Amino acid sequence: MPSSPIRKLVPFAEAAVQRGLKVYHLNIGQPDIETPQIMLDAVRKSDFKILEYGHSAGNESYRKKLVKYYQSVGIAVDYQQIVITTGGSEAILFGFMACLDYGDEVLIPEPFYANYHGFAAEAGVNVVTVTSTIENGFALPPVSELEKKLTPRTKAIVICNPNNPTGYVYSKEEMEQLGELVKKHQLYLFCDEAYREFNYEGEMPMSSLNLLGVDAHVIMVDTISKRYSACGGRIGALVTRNKALIEAVMKFAQARLCPPGFAQMAGEAALDLPADYFDQTKAEYKARRDLIVRRLNEMDGVYCPKPSGAFYAIAQLPIDDADKFCQWLLSSFSYKNATVMLAPGSGFYATSGLGKNQVRFAYVLNVQDISAAMDCLQEALKVYAAL
Amino acid sequence: MPSSPIRKLVPFAEAAVQRGLKVYHLNIGQPDIETPQIMLDAVRKSDFKILEYGHSAGNESYRKKLVKYYQSVGIAVDYQQIVITTGGSEAILFGFMACLDYGDEVLIPEPFYANYHGFAAEAGVNVVTVTSTIENGFALPPVSELEKKLTPRTKAIVICNPNNPTGYVYSKEEMEQLGELVKKHQLYLFCDEAYREFNYEGEMPMSSLNLLGVDAHVIMVDTISKRYSACGGRIGALVTRNKALIEAVMKFAQARLCPPGFAQMAGEAALDLPADYFDQTKAEYKARRDLIVRRLNEMDGVYCPKPSGAFYAIAQLPIDDADKFCQWLLSSFSYKNATVMLAPGSGFYATSGLGKNQVRFAYVLNVQDISAAMDCLQEALKVYAAL
Repeated sequence: MPSSPIRKLVPFAEAAVQRGLKVYHLNIGQPDIETPQIMLDAVRKSDFKILEYGHSAGNESYRKKLVKYYQSVGIAVDYQQIVITTGGSEAILFGFMACLDYGDEVLIPEPFYANYHGFAAEAGVNVVTVTSTIENGFALPPVSELEKKLTPRTKAIVICNPNNPTGYVYSKEEMEQLGELVKKHQLYLFCDEAYREFNYEGEMPMSSLNLLGVDAHVIMVDTISKRYSACGGRIGALVTRNKALIEAVMKFAQARLCPPGFAQMAGEAALDLPADYFDQTKAEYKARRDLIVRRLNEMDGVYCPKPSGAFYAIAQLPIDDADKFCQWLLSSFSYKNATVMLAPGSGFYATSGLGKNQVRFAYVLNVQDISAAMDCLQEALKVYAAL
Repeated sequence: MPSSPIRKLVPFAEAAVQRGLKVYHLNIGQPDIETPQIMLDAVRKSDFKILEYGHSAGNESYRKKLVKYYQSVGIAVDYQQIVITTGGSEAILFGFMACLDYGDEVLIPEPFYANYHGFAAEAGVNVVTVTSTIENGFALPPVSELEKKLTPRTKAIVICNPNNPTGYVYSKEEMEQLGELVKKHQLYLFCDEAYREFNYEGEMPMSSLNLLGVDAHVIMVDTISKRYSACGGRIGALVTRNKALIEAVMKFAQARLCPPGFAQMAGEAALDLPADYFDQTKAEYKARRDLIVRRLNEMDGVYCPKPSGAFYAIAQLPIDDADKFCQWLLSSFSYKNATVMLAPGSGFYATSGLGKNQVRFAYVLNVQDISAAMDCLQEALKVYAAL
């Protein structure tokens, strides 16, 4: 597994803090939104005496309540089609292990969430990519491009919708194209829908589970991490209508006994949040997105397509090497006693050389901080250009 | 992965309950001991606002405190030699993935904890076994027997000490033999020390980390599940002095971001328990062990070696097929409106046909219930023999 370019920056960020700098963290998808009180209270006010093993598929009460949540977002599933996992991470890993054999291939549009690499490596699976471009706002490449990458070992296509790291929201048409493709070539379709609620233009994106005629193909991956700002709980879900696949996944689930107990309580309590819970959060993220994208595009030589969803944006900067630039920001630059930590684009591409002048912004800071971070970046680009 | 014979019994147990029977669960290692209040309070009285991602290796404060715990049980390690995992399960999986390649072999004395099979399958690794016998109380087979099973693909030996499912505690001599063996053949030694505190005869068993000259070989697996009756928390640890191995494990740890947040707080709080915390728990388990082993050996045709540790015992029963017998207990037998759920021995052996007349008892019920369960079993064996 390649070492992440973000992780390489961590010691530089620590050193910057030690030098007394404020570091604006736009590098990681850790929301600053408070975890809903109702979730924390469910844990804090619990009164059990023994922290016992739970069901390997997750607490039945939680799964049954999740069915209603999915219903509320237009997805019809049964609780036996849900396996609660230790974060969305474990859902992807279990899905890979259940669907793919050693040496098989998964096809992923790049740039993509870097940890898919890790899960693929753990499952003994090779990642093959098709490139989506910043010029097209990171839309799905033409299906013909995807088809060119298929080999007899290709067993699955993996997408994230809304997308991390691009923020792109796949259209209904793109989703249907993917549905046709996996049906035609008898592939699995993994769809990571962690950011379902975070679409700032129009409707909620089409769920992979609402594609027609591909019930046996679709594995939907979910998590409470981003939806409710509960990243540390480590509660996710694998959802599929493919019964044999649920049975295969359950073998892995049983081997690790059960998902974390406390955080399942928090996850279950989240389902009692009022229907308008996301309105405020979405309004906040939308304001941040509008600000960061506007500010970026106002900078000389910077281009940032306006993404519709999640809380990420990828921008192209007038720089030679984003890895170098991001390290320089932390080690050699400051403005008003502050600097910015960004995620170099290269870490999201499998194709060597791609993303070299791109960076990912996670807009997980409030608008004042984003504004200050953009002032900082604007100044940094000037200084860097003159080096 | 084979389906577990215990899991096959679950619907029969549920049906028995529906028929109004009391089912004494001696089949699973879920302790009935209360989780220490100090652990639950650490979670319930916490006052953070955002359930954030933690460090991929586990919270630093927790790892530093664990160093003191290990010191208190005579094990010298540094906090950077510890990776907090999602249960001991994940520690074994990460260890397998980091140490072994696809198609490699692990050698495990059977009977063994059935889920090792699952982790091996997930890591693409084959399990090879050497048989320890009930006649020898499940002691380590002679090293010559282990050596016979080594092939060029053998990369690791896996033991659990004190042992699940046998309760056997490996002696210092046996541990040293294993140390010599892994050194001689350049193997890894995985030692699952989940039950360290639960030894009812003499000293705490020798830790694999106290074997001399094999620091690069030893991977110690730990968990809070049994020690503090906190199975549902899913907090374990992988401990090794092999720095390159820690780095490899960290890549897997980083891919899944972090171990569960709430339960880490509970785990850290456990380290403030008074030094005599285990005295009462151990006294309780010892009384249960003494009772169950005595009662079993008093039954006609039953043989149960007296195990020194953990909270398990394997007995040989005068039956043809323990899978059938255990199912019959749940589906067709009752005594004083109750029956017993046991774990068939076959599930703990990889060699087909072994353990057919053996069952595992987890003595996780109080002495009154164990006594009633033994009355029930004694009657059942009589009825079964006359069928």
